[in-house]
Amino acid sequence: MHTSDIVRVVLTRGQPESEHLVDVVVADESGAQRAWGRVDAPVIPRSAIKAVQAVPLLRTGAAAANELSEIEVALAAASHSAEPDQVAAVERWLARIGAGADDLECGSDRPLNEAEDDRMLRAGEAFGPLQNCCSGKHTGFLTIAHHLGLDHQGYIEREHPVQRLVTEATEQFTGLDLSAAVTGRDGCGIPTFSMPAEALAAAMARIVRPGRFDDATAEAATTIARAMVEHPWWVSGTGRPEVTLARVATEPLLTKGGAEGVMVAALPERGWGIAVKSRDGARRGADTALAAVLELLEVVPAGTSRSEVTNKAGTVVGEMYAIVP
Amino acid sequence: MHTSDIVRVVLTRGQPESEHLVDVVVADESGAQRAWGRVDAPVIPRSAIKAVQAVPLLRTGAAAANELSEIEVALAAASHSAEPDQVAAVERWLARIGAGADDLECGSDRPLNEAEDDRMLRAGEAFGPLQNCCSGKHTGFLTIAHHLGLDHQGYIEREHPVQRLVTEATEQFTGLDLSAAVTGRDGCGIPTFSMPAEALAAAMARIVRPGRFDDATAEAATTIARAMVEHPWWVSGTGRPEVTLARVATEPLLTKGGAEGVMVAALPERGWGIAVKSRDGARRGADTALAAVLELLEVVPAGTSRSEVTNKAGTVVGEMYAIVP
Repeated sequence: MHTSDIVRVVLTRGQPESEHLVDVVVADESGAQRAWGRVDAPVIPRSAIKAVQAVPLLRTGAAAANELSEIEVALAAASHSAEPDQVAAVERWLARIGAGADDLECGSDRPLNEAEDDRMLRAGEAFGPLQNCCSGKHTGFLTIAHHLGLDHQGYIEREHPVQRLVTEATEQFTGLDLSAAVTGRDGCGIPTFSMPAEALAAAMARIVRPGRFDDATAEAATTIARAMVEHPWWVSGTGRPEVTLARVATEPLLTKGGAEGVMVAALPERGWGIAVKSRDGARRGADTALAAVLELLEVVPAGTSRSEVTNKAGTVVGEMYAIVP
Repeated sequence: MHTSDIVRVVLTRGQPESEHLVDVVVADESGAQRAWGRVDAPVIPRSAIKAVQAVPLLRTGAAAANELSEIEVALAAASHSAEPDQVAAVERWLARIGAGADDLECGSDRPLNEAEDDRMLRAGEAFGPLQNCCSGKHTGFLTIAHHLGLDHQGYIEREHPVQRLVTEATEQFTGLDLSAAVTGRDGCGIPTFSMPAEALAAAMARIVRPGRFDDATAEAATTIARAMVEHPWWVSGTGRPEVTLARVATEPLLTKGGAEGVMVAALPERGWGIAVKSRDGARRGADTALAAVLELLEVVPAGTSRSEVTNKAGTVVGEMYAIVP
């Protein structure tokens, strides 16, 4: 395992202005192979671990019993932008399992997509839990409860059978024992765990190279990976890094962002997983660092990670780029 | 001069999640007296230096000739939230000097105040340069041009007489020679300079203790400081740190934020200035660090800097606090 200095993401405005320190770990299914910064950097993965959290939906048979489409599987692992087609798809899925927006325990939110947020305000429409970027994942949780004949109320709590299944999958893919772990609560209410960056990177490698697991688990992982690689827009939304990186990638690429500066990626053809954490929690730091490491790995073209900074009048006033030692 | 380790601002979610590194310098009119991190940390002050940038408006006699109110002086040094009363005040001031929104070269923007942003969208109103948080400062620039009989077009360019006056004031208060400095362009289009944190802190000390300067300059500084101390809402907006810190301060307090994680403060009774830069550019890092240092200096009550983190459902999921070594 080769460790280098931490990745720095620099923002300039004539002169250097700000800087993000970003830990990056590349792993295969056995563990870290390459790291910048701390291989054991503590990461609360937030939404970046949704691929793993979607495993029980497939593994319990809930997806098959409810004939979920590949797009619905992608939505179960998504932080969507609440664009109209995305919200409509979640709504139809909820109706199919006899549930509605009121059953979602993720909380109301506004669309991540600014244009849709503006459109809803102009149209006088109300924001609700469907607009929460996690509404697809939560519909997946409700689908599990529905399939297993469980009372879905409180499905976001750590001791609810649905979250027990999610924690079990998280332990399995990360290789961690979380039974005594201190939990936090995610933006959408479910339990979160802090873990070493290496464990998160390895979990992503195992999503695309799940040979170590039983057949049902391996099939679940493969289905999720395929859905996320094929449908990055359904996993994220217009203009988001998941979409723009997939568009320029020269091989199949799965990426997923999480709040507080987390990004993960997986390369199915290589069997590699990548975990990225901007120590300060900045989205731009994580996105730029992941793009730069993907350049280094020759997954995306050189220059992908470099971007211009513009001001209110649209004038270019600086740039943002990563220094990968 | 006593230097300590850098201030760390920690965000938790059950466990530590993210962390900001924040340089802080406390200076009197002669220079740094106390620092956490690098006393010479490079800072592009952005909007945090607006008190200094407002000096020519007063010193040229433009403010007196146009009978500017104390609130208009505060707006000249403001990054307002574009709340209705603030926008109306800028509009009236522009009309008084025979100018209009079209003369502003700051670029169009949306209100920093989210409720006002939502209201405008619901009402179908268009965003323009008046909503740009810098429209008061730019109206000040137009007032100088009007008073001096200058062509105001291009007043944001470094070589325009208005910006020459602004640069001259910046050199005077910071004690720096900026004649050969590399400039950047600010969010609102005017030139920006990178400077050591000490120079910015000392400039703020000199705004409230301007005895070293000629009478016109000292009077300008005193007028600006009084306006900013007395009218923090006009300098910022509802719920912003400039307002909340002033509300709990036990002595007169001037604070002003700038983009990319900059905050400054000045304590008129002590003759001190403070410069704060979150290295990663995070607003929350700078705001929390300044509040914590103001606690240490017994300007605001203990606990002011500590805040709760809530999720979409309104549940408390963590906290944010500063560690000041």
